[in-house]
Amino acid sequence: MSSMMKAAVFIAPGRIEIAEKPIPDVGPNDALIRITTTTICGTDVHILKGEYPVAPGLTIGHEPVGIIEKLGSAVSGYQEGQRVIAGAICPNFNSYAAQDGVASQDGSYLIAAGRCGCHGYKATAGWRFGNLIDGTQAEYVLVPDAQANLAPIPDGLTDEQVLMCPDIMSTGFKGAENANIRIGDTVVVFAQGPIGLCATAGARLLGATTIIAVDGNAHRLGISRQMGADITLNFTQCDVVEEVMKLTGGRGADAAIEALGTQHTFASALQVLKPGGTLSSLGVYSSDLTIPLGAFAAGLGDHKINTALCPGGKERMRRLMGVIASGRLDLGALVTHHYALDDIEAAYDLFAHQRDGVLKIAIRP
Amino acid sequence: MSSMMKAAVFIAPGRIEIAEKPIPDVGPNDALIRITTTTICGTDVHILKGEYPVAPGLTIGHEPVGIIEKLGSAVSGYQEGQRVIAGAICPNFNSYAAQDGVASQDGSYLIAAGRCGCHGYKATAGWRFGNLIDGTQAEYVLVPDAQANLAPIPDGLTDEQVLMCPDIMSTGFKGAENANIRIGDTVVVFAQGPIGLCATAGARLLGATTIIAVDGNAHRLGISRQMGADITLNFTQCDVVEEVMKLTGGRGADAAIEALGTQHTFASALQVLKPGGTLSSLGVYSSDLTIPLGAFAAGLGDHKINTALCPGGKERMRRLMGVIASGRLDLGALVTHHYALDDIEAAYDLFAHQRDGVLKIAIRP
Amino acid sequence: MSSMMKAAVFIAPGRIEIAEKPIPDVGPNDALIRITTTTICGTDVHILKGEYPVAPGLTIGHEPVGIIEKLGSAVSGYQEGQRVIAGAICPNFNSYAAQDGVASQDGSYLIAAGRCGCHGYKATAGWRFGNLIDGTQAEYVLVPDAQANLAPIPDGLTDEQVLMCPDIMSTGFKGAENANIRIGDTVVVFAQGPIGLCATAGARLLGATTIIAVDGNAHRLGISRQMGADITLNFTQCDVVEEVMKLTGGRGADAAIEALGTQHTFASALQVLKPGGTLSSLGVYSSDLTIPLGAFAAGLGDHKINTALCPGGKERMRRLMGVIASGRLDLGALVTHHYALDDIEAAYDLFAHQRDGVLKIAIRP
Amino acid sequence: MSSMMKAAVFIAPGRIEIAEKPIPDVGPNDALIRITTTTICGTDVHILKGEYPVAPGLTIGHEPVGIIEKLGSAVSGYQEGQRVIAGAICPNFNSYAAQDGVASQDGSYLIAAGRCGCHGYKATAGWRFGNLIDGTQAEYVLVPDAQANLAPIPDGLTDEQVLMCPDIMSTGFKGAENANIRIGDTVVVFAQGPIGLCATAGARLLGATTIIAVDGNAHRLGISRQMGADITLNFTQCDVVEEVMKLTGGRGADAAIEALGTQHTFASALQVLKPGGTLSSLGVYSSDLTIPLGAFAAGLGDHKINTALCPGGKERMRRLMGVIASGRLDLGALVTHHYALDDIEAAYDLFAHQRDGVLKIAIRP
Repeated sequence: MSSMMKAAVFIAPGRIEIAEKPIPDVGPNDALIRITTTTICGTDVHILKGEYPVAPGLTIGHEPVGIIEKLGSAVSGYQEGQRVIAGAICPNFNSYAAQDGVASQDGSYLIAAGRCGCHGYKATAGWRFGNLIDGTQAEYVLVPDAQANLAPIPDGLTDEQVLMCPDIMSTGFKGAENANIRIGDTVVVFAQGPIGLCATAGARLLGATTIIAVDGNAHRLGISRQMGADITLNFTQCDVVEEVMKLTGGRGADAAIEALGTQHTFASALQVLKPGGTLSSLGVYSSDLTIPLGAFAAGLGDHKINTALCPGGKERMRRLMGVIASGRLDLGALVTHHYALDDIEAAYDLFAHQRDGVLKIAIRP
Repeated sequence: MSSMMKAAVFIAPGRIEIAEKPIPDVGPNDALIRITTTTICGTDVHILKGEYPVAPGLTIGHEPVGIIEKLGSAVSGYQEGQRVIAGAICPNFNSYAAQDGVASQDGSYLIAAGRCGCHGYKATAGWRFGNLIDGTQAEYVLVPDAQANLAPIPDGLTDEQVLMCPDIMSTGFKGAENANIRIGDTVVVFAQGPIGLCATAGARLLGATTIIAVDGNAHRLGISRQMGADITLNFTQCDVVEEVMKLTGGRGADAAIEALGTQHTFASALQVLKPGGTLSSLGVYSSDLTIPLGAFAAGLGDHKINTALCPGGKERMRRLMGVIASGRLDLGALVTHHYALDDIEAAYDLFAHQRDGVLKIAIRP
Repeated sequence: MSSMMKAAVFIAPGRIEIAEKPIPDVGPNDALIRITTTTICGTDVHILKGEYPVAPGLTIGHEPVGIIEKLGSAVSGYQEGQRVIAGAICPNFNSYAAQDGVASQDGSYLIAAGRCGCHGYKATAGWRFGNLIDGTQAEYVLVPDAQANLAPIPDGLTDEQVLMCPDIMSTGFKGAENANIRIGDTVVVFAQGPIGLCATAGARLLGATTIIAVDGNAHRLGISRQMGADITLNFTQCDVVEEVMKLTGGRGADAAIEALGTQHTFASALQVLKPGGTLSSLGVYSSDLTIPLGAFAAGLGDHKINTALCPGGKERMRRLMGVIASGRLDLGALVTHHYALDDIEAAYDLFAHQRDGVLKIAIRP
Repeated sequence: MSSMMKAAVFIAPGRIEIAEKPIPDVGPNDALIRITTTTICGTDVHILKGEYPVAPGLTIGHEPVGIIEKLGSAVSGYQEGQRVIAGAICPNFNSYAAQDGVASQDGSYLIAAGRCGCHGYKATAGWRFGNLIDGTQAEYVLVPDAQANLAPIPDGLTDEQVLMCPDIMSTGFKGAENANIRIGDTVVVFAQGPIGLCATAGARLLGATTIIAVDGNAHRLGISRQMGADITLNFTQCDVVEEVMKLTGGRGADAAIEALGTQHTFASALQVLKPGGTLSSLGVYSSDLTIPLGAFAAGLGDHKINTALCPGGKERMRRLMGVIASGRLDLGALVTHHYALDDIEAAYDLFAHQRDGVLKIAIRP
């Protein structure tokens, strides 16, 4: 094994390029993974565009599928050569935050690194790959807290079948889990990109029986039906809030899931809710949000608003891969394109411009 | 018994006056209560000022303590002459909303009355006294759905001891119950008016061990200590967000309760939270709200925002009066003034201008 | 309309017969329903055999599908001639128990009737049809607390499609709801009679991805696969506990649902659980139960045991019928036989002896 | 520092003696703690008597208060010389069980050690000190998974003030937390030994307003009032079940906490419950348990039975010490005696025979 590897690194706004970097050393609680498949996320595009700042030279990407190359001395119960994934968020489960129930929100890493200048930043400190440490768009990646985060891939599942688990499926499902869904609920899912599609699938798995998928893209609405939507609304062709009120006999939806990150979808999600309903928000917003007074019933509507960062950890990954293995859900339709790591710049270009019906791109070193 | 009674009725913006009205007839599921004590709420002042619209001629007030004068033919298990209270919100527990877990949000009454022009209004339809039907600032009040809403006063408790139960205590406690408090939590309560003081007391009862009460009024902060606050912050003398961060070692509060209804307190409540924390909102807002992006961690902070309308029903009232009877909490300090019903205009004047350290005024017909 | 009707009444142990009875009067909060379809429950067989005592002369049955014949004067929002169902349990939602979260457990009815001699009996006091008041195996039935309990049948659903909603589906689903199921769980369902089959279907709807159905009857195990079981275990052919441990890699099941009511299934349900797992018990037991020390980890296993009585009320029925209407679940396979009310004695005979692959029998007056 | 230390080791049933042992080596994720105070638990007496089997030569004890002597190379954020505690249960928070919500139930340690012969044993595998590895009744103890388990003692708290946190307070509070307590609840706590007393205190902190403490020892009942009991029942002088029914007007208690581990207290805890109530069980039982059919309402009472093993981890310990620091609770009354480590055999003798009003004994090396 050579001591060098290829990696897609952030150079400057507008530039992510393949570079040679040393293969990292393995500490006692780490594992080195040889990447066999990874993918590009919307967040990576924000990094590319310079909208989300990371250190120049950092390897990008946070969705690893691969093979254990080397285990740290204190990591047990795994074998080198084993196929594994790890979550996009690799929490430190020894942290106060994790023991307090929000593993993805551990700020101790940032504080230790002296990078925590403000309260807001700490909130997402559980996200390390391609943000605080080198990421997965490379030949190798170092997984921290490996004992907590390495999840063996069940026999019989391909790389592509589990490629959505580290981020897209975990985030989308969390959106459904945060929506307080009960059997028989009506749930509206705003936006049917990869995460919204997984939220739709999650709502179906949790017993919602009227799932209304909203998007402006007819192709994505078609896929949302495969994922479990009962009704699709194209917001370019109807007034979504009015339509939901009609569909529910004026009662409003039990829950709404926001999977885009805009003021308009956030406000609409609140407007379709019944009094007592839940807004589960997944979007990454880029400016202050406005809560409309009427939809909020002036604060008297017994509404709930829940937000979330993608859950990680080996138990979460085990469950998600179990869902795939059970045959309950096939996310194959989400992987629309394939590229070699060497061609990742072209892949970014396709993905950033949403050409050719792209949903997710499998990247192979 | 005469067929007429005195009542404080809304005439026009700026005018609430004592008028003569017929004592209402009692339907099969109603009860007629002779009021012995009631009080004025901040909402009543909004009505007085014309900020919240009600029908001219409506009797105002929603906090009844009294004696059963007459029971409907289908109401059983009570006796005429029995001392009772009823919640400010008298839900129809037979409604879909109540069976769905949000009794205060039943919209069927409004829909039946043909008064439900918009989605937002339905949200508070559980509030009937002094809003949709004649209220409690009168010699008599008709309690609808009496079987569900009449709550006998335990022996040994005075009118004043239970006067906060119908609204102030039920709402304030709900603020604490909605805050997901666990033993050992740090909870910040914004505003220490009557409801905020009860939220402080509720947080104490639920096991919070660092309760930080915030207000600009030193007298109210003093009372907050009697209600269970460990630390008081006068926002005229410090930066509250900064101070909470200092007190929690940079960790943030586990929960914050908003008990005023302004943009500033709402935003501050979000800013003091730890990632994963809960904002329990009680305030009645009068315009759209802004969620600051940073405090919201761009939507990635695992935050929860919960709102509530005052819970009602005889079981709720039974529990609240049980808390008073147990001696765990003495809300005597909240009743600062006494007026006869005939002098209610003067009482409104005192209360609306918050003169003389007023918190709540006992009104006696 | 004649003033008399036919009804299946309990005469003495071993004798349920068709008799003539007066059609009941309708009080202000009642509704008179003309039965179009009803069915026989296992509990009815216990009554027939004298194992569960009811008053001689009582009409039996608690699963009504029919048409509103007459509404009480205080009941609104319904129309005579409307097709409706009501739950097997028709709770008094005005009661303390209902407002306390356990509507099915209201004891006030029994206490009022002076029939509540002991603590244990109060527990099931929410069950009135065919237990405390005349039941549904008749031409007409009087529904108490009609405002809370009448649930209109959605257009396009037949009597048979909703016949399981009042009891079998509500109870079976509650078994799944009580099992704390999360996406990806392994759930074992003990016994695949009608209620167990619905528990299997409920577990599937709530996101369990490995559902193991247990029974000794190969035909019922076959139907359990239609209801959503992934794996079936015939206890006459294998050691169920051992098999579950093998299937879960020694980890144990996340949850187990007991749907029979015997010591053996109860103990097995505990034995298959992981530490921290939940036993959801639906069975009606007929003697003291033993908790095996080892399976209970001497009390240190973070286990949960939850029991339930069938939930009722119009919102519950609305949701269950919504599940059927959504096409998520087809319970058609559960109605295996049809009889006229006049032939109900033959139907009891078939059902009590479980002849001819019977699951449920539709009875039509 | 010498390489040898004194430790109380299990020799054979009936014999725990002070022996010399090597001070253990410190691995990368360990910490070596110099014990300043520890104590004896009822479980230790079971070990002494041979009722609970441990390996001969094992150091006993699981309640550590001490000073960090040496940190493993991978442990950060602590300093040698710092005063700390660790939970009686030191979970591996990297395990599947911990990520699944039951940190105390991790069986991976036992499986790794090849000691897991049966399902039941795995359940308590989170308990390591004095069970699977050397314990705390020694001059030094090695804390595994130190990053997750070391909890700094707040300034100003003495060893004795935090001595109950590792086990007694964490277990007792968990009993209250598992009881689904809401404000205004009636809670019955069976047995007022150290853990029952902490359950009483926990029920008070969570808002129960009628706390009924049960024991046969008048002295302990006296202390239960200091811990928050409103009413005490001496079972040698009354029928507890009958008395609770009288006190609740026939309604039954909302919750009951079993803190002894006998058939009689378990059955009584079920018998005092209302339909829908919760039995929170803390006891370590020594034989199969019987559930009485009547109290269990034949399985139809909407009852919940929850069990628990003591929660651990630094966040739990931080919260518990925070409760002490807040002044909400003073557990000083529970430490009744003091002994040097050298005299621990006499301490065991006193404790095992419950002489001299002993509750807990502080042991100092």
